Amino acid sequence: MVLYGRNAVHEALRGPRQVQHVWATPGAAAEPWLEAAVAGGQVDVNVVPDAEWVQRRSGSPDHQGVCAQVGAYRYADAAELLLRPRPLIVALDEIQDPQNLGAIVRTAECAGATGVVIPERRSAEVTPAVCKASAGAVEHLPIARVRNLADFLLDARDAGAWCYGAEGDGGRPYTAVDYAGGGVVLVLGSEGRGLRPRVAASCDGLIALPLRGQIESLNVSAAASALIYEIVRQRDVAAKAR
Amino acid sequence: MVLYGRNAVHEALRGPRQVQHVWATPGAAAEPWLEAAVAGGQVDVNVVPDAEWVQRRSGSPDHQGVCAQVGAYRYADAAELLLRPRPLIVALDEIQDPQNLGAIVRTAECAGATGVVIPERRSAEVTPAVCKASAGAVEHLPIARVRNLADFLLDARDAGAWCYGAEGDGGRPYTAVDYAGGGVVLVLGSEGRGLRPRVAASCDGLIALPLRGQIESLNVSAAASALIYEIVRQRDVAAKAR
Repeated sequence: MVLYGRNAVHEALRGPRQVQHVWATPGAAAEPWLEAAVAGGQVDVNVVPDAEWVQRRSGSPDHQGVCAQVGAYRYADAAELLLRPRPLIVALDEIQDPQNLGAIVRTAECAGATGVVIPERRSAEVTPAVCKASAGAVEHLPIARVRNLADFLLDARDAGAWCYGAEGDGGRPYTAVDYAGGGVVLVLGSEGRGLRPRVAASCDGLIALPLRGQIESLNVSAAASALIYEIVRQRDVAAKAR
Repeated sequence: MVLYGRNAVHEALRGPRQVQHVWATPGAAAEPWLEAAVAGGQVDVNVVPDAEWVQRRSGSPDHQGVCAQVGAYRYADAAELLLRPRPLIVALDEIQDPQNLGAIVRTAECAGATGVVIPERRSAEVTPAVCKASAGAVEHLPIARVRNLADFLLDARDAGAWCYGAEGDGGRPYTAVDYAGGGVVLVLGSEGRGLRPRVAASCDGLIALPLRGQIESLNVSAAASALIYEIVRQRDVAAKAR
């Protein structure tokens, strides 16, 4: 696959993924992170005459002067994520917009989550657009694919985690739930349709952010950020109290 | 200006802005919200043969089958926002990406914030792309433009509000600040450069979200969501305790 964009390529160089080759405009090739990677013998850079070349190679206008041929993305094992101590896992139910998937992965990585779980079908996968939207966070955060998300939630509960589905309405206030007592799987649905009934039914409970304006719903990546950081906040408070 | 996108047009019809005319594909024209607006005599709809017509009229491929000629966007008065009881204002320091401005306005509107303040220069304005990215939230949330953001922050402090600037590092933990005691202005900088020195110096304090991953920074709209909802959470807790 051909990654594009400064952060996407930079983080691929810093992460476990194999980076076979980089194409960069003279401007991008002179950036310190890329010069350092070349000086360190980490990768070869083809300096191309102009942005047009990078666009042709990457197939996207959003390349910021640099793209890279890299190895396939290695998905993580969902069952392995559940073995981590008190995991914080973000499970996404058929989120198809690459921007939203990338944005949620970026926030989850920044907040120190354990990983993200997506279904194999009817979901955005880790494409170059997602790598770009995640600012390269996909290179560091484990992302696992499962055949059936509802089954994964039942497995997670068997493994001792608590599964909470975010709903626009009908959920308990998100602050009224204790996220510090054990592993947590936060389940988010697609913006149009929310959680599928069987996915919602496989959760321990449903939670909701307060909506106090005129418009109907938060963007799913904005909701993810508020919810993930509330979980982190509660865990920090509990850790201090210990 | 010509708005485009389902939510952008729908919320313009629900809000104070004058909607002069709507163009819609047969599919979009048959959606209940638009049929109801026509039946209520609120607006005329030109049903056009196909999406190509809407794209030509709106100048964007992101129209979802509908666009509307509307009156100019009416900005709010920043000084007036400061007169509200215990305002929660989000001030944006030179955020130029329309997606980020729109996303932050959407979250602020959903969370029940008082309004958003942006500088007149070197900032994204309320363009049709921002209306679309905000899912129409710009029609309901006051947005004010100020000549000088640092001066506005000093005015806000004179008016009794507390101004907190978000910084990637160097700030106090965002949860260690009391947001419930009075008005709050949350100041967010552009992703690349953060807050300008004079803007940061005009704040009462700097705050930071914990970053526990490998990548350097949250997207500014993700940071906005976590911070705004923490302010709302603290205020809810304080209101209950009263």
